[in-house]
Amino acid sequence: MTTARRRVLSGMQPSGLMHLGNYLGALENWKALQEQYDCYFFVADWHALSTNYADTSRIRTFVHEMLIDWLAGGIDPERSTIFIQSRIPEHAILHLLLSMMAPLSWLERNPTYKEKQDEIKEKDLTTYGFLGYPVLQAADILLYKPDFVPVGKDQLPHLELTRELARRFNDIYKATVFPEPKEYLTRFPKVVGTDGRKMSKSYNNTINLSDTEPVVRQKLKTMVTDPARIRRTDPGNPDLCPVYEFHKIYSPQTVQDQVNQDCRTAAIGCIDCKKLVADRMVEQLTPIWDARTKLTQHPSRVEDIVEAGSKRAAAVAGATLHEVNEAMKI
Amino acid sequence: MTTARRRVLSGMQPSGLMHLGNYLGALENWKALQEQYDCYFFVADWHALSTNYADTSRIRTFVHEMLIDWLAGGIDPERSTIFIQSRIPEHAILHLLLSMMAPLSWLERNPTYKEKQDEIKEKDLTTYGFLGYPVLQAADILLYKPDFVPVGKDQLPHLELTRELARRFNDIYKATVFPEPKEYLTRFPKVVGTDGRKMSKSYNNTINLSDTEPVVRQKLKTMVTDPARIRRTDPGNPDLCPVYEFHKIYSPQTVQDQVNQDCRTAAIGCIDCKKLVADRMVEQLTPIWDARTKLTQHPSRVEDIVEAGSKRAAAVAGATLHEVNEAMKI
Repeated sequence: MTTARRRVLSGMQPSGLMHLGNYLGALENWKALQEQYDCYFFVADWHALSTNYADTSRIRTFVHEMLIDWLAGGIDPERSTIFIQSRIPEHAILHLLLSMMAPLSWLERNPTYKEKQDEIKEKDLTTYGFLGYPVLQAADILLYKPDFVPVGKDQLPHLELTRELARRFNDIYKATVFPEPKEYLTRFPKVVGTDGRKMSKSYNNTINLSDTEPVVRQKLKTMVTDPARIRRTDPGNPDLCPVYEFHKIYSPQTVQDQVNQDCRTAAIGCIDCKKLVADRMVEQLTPIWDARTKLTQHPSRVEDIVEAGSKRAAAVAGATLHEVNEAMKI
Repeated sequence: MTTARRRVLSGMQPSGLMHLGNYLGALENWKALQEQYDCYFFVADWHALSTNYADTSRIRTFVHEMLIDWLAGGIDPERSTIFIQSRIPEHAILHLLLSMMAPLSWLERNPTYKEKQDEIKEKDLTTYGFLGYPVLQAADILLYKPDFVPVGKDQLPHLELTRELARRFNDIYKATVFPEPKEYLTRFPKVVGTDGRKMSKSYNNTINLSDTEPVVRQKLKTMVTDPARIRRTDPGNPDLCPVYEFHKIYSPQTVQDQVNQDCRTAAIGCIDCKKLVADRMVEQLTPIWDARTKLTQHPSRVEDIVEAGSKRAAAVAGATLHEVNEAMKI
């Protein structure tokens, strides 16, 4: 008999096409986690509505492309349970039940509530659902009773709120339905975008996993470099050059060192330097692109995977909701 | 071919045992409505959590007794669809979807939000779910696209909020999913309790449909009368006597007139007066009690009815949610 692997749950909002920032940030972590843990990975499509309710025109595309990106990027459906939130009604039901006992003050003091509203000024986020998204997140997590939830430091307050709701539920109903999930602290490397700012779909500076090779090469070609290096003959400073950040991710140490030296002495120009990193990036993205092509040609394979995963997830979520109903005597 | 009957939707919270106030208020209206309309009547058990989340110990009993009261009181499962909210996941799902687009300000300005908090001081109602209960109510209603919703004047702001959410949804998604339900204004007669205040379970002054004859007689026997009539020989004033309110409901005009006159001249004492009304009340409650007894002896009949009703309701709710998902493209 083998010991049951400990469980991890994580989700991703389909609010755009996945880019290298998402890949290097979240997906690389997920791939490492599935080696050790019983992983539940879900597309948080209902969650995406909290900020995108006013324009849902591309959400189905984003969900489908995200699943392809996960699978092409190395998430293994044999080992991990891959599912879509909106296929599991239990998420909406537990959200409703938890909402009844969630103190408003806990949500109002959630630091990201105000921050996000200030950040995303062009959207009206003073909605009931946006205020309550940590309650939905708590439902998403608690249904699967995970041992760990991978989070960045900035998301710790949300996970703490999930734990507080779990305790409050157990307290009120004198039950032990919800174990408290622990954080699995992950460092999300800051990936730079083509304009030198953080890579983010809101800045329109992303390189997407679904981009083709010519698009990736073109994006790198027009990418911002050390702004002080104006002429080919000017020496550059790799520490101030976003392209060099990509070298640090994609090029072997020897290339990094060479480029670093040649840039400072103007021995290499930006165009050649970019070509070097583009070649490396393309080399490493090619297996993902190949896998993407295959999956794109066989959409029913993606559907089969997500259907099987959603079925597995529904069984777990259904069992938990049953316990919840029994504890609440409803 | 017959024209489809117009649809009415109404729900009741199982927050206690049904009393004469509920019966004469809501149930008599429902019975009249089912003569003309295609009625959907539901036990709002999830809704009851918004004020009763901290003590759910009796909720299953209340749900079961409420169904018995409805059936014994004359709701006809052949003509009306009787169901339980928590059996239809679509209520929780549409609640979640509507929450995403429900402006917080609409909920904060809801007059009953503050009123109820002030009224029910012993419970902590500063919860996310209590603030959002008009969103759940909107989901409850809109899923069934009723032509009419029976409401009292005080509930008009809630129905207006439902209509505003329907319009907002149709606007955002350029859809015509939700017709706007109209109010069916009903006057809820103020039924007096045994202490002379409004009959209400929070005052512990109710006569319940599930009370037995001896209990009803005993409750009337100890009921408050005109406080100025202290001795048997004092003349009384029926206009100030809560027992006389019951005469107006249960006794024929001749008895009312006789009692009115005899009270003012002290020709009749309170004990005899109460016995007169008790006899009439018992007479009119007896068919309900008999029906209750039969249903209590055959709990599977109640379950069969609610199962069939929930199935019918689920079909309607499922079809609407499908339209919602298509309009939102999720």
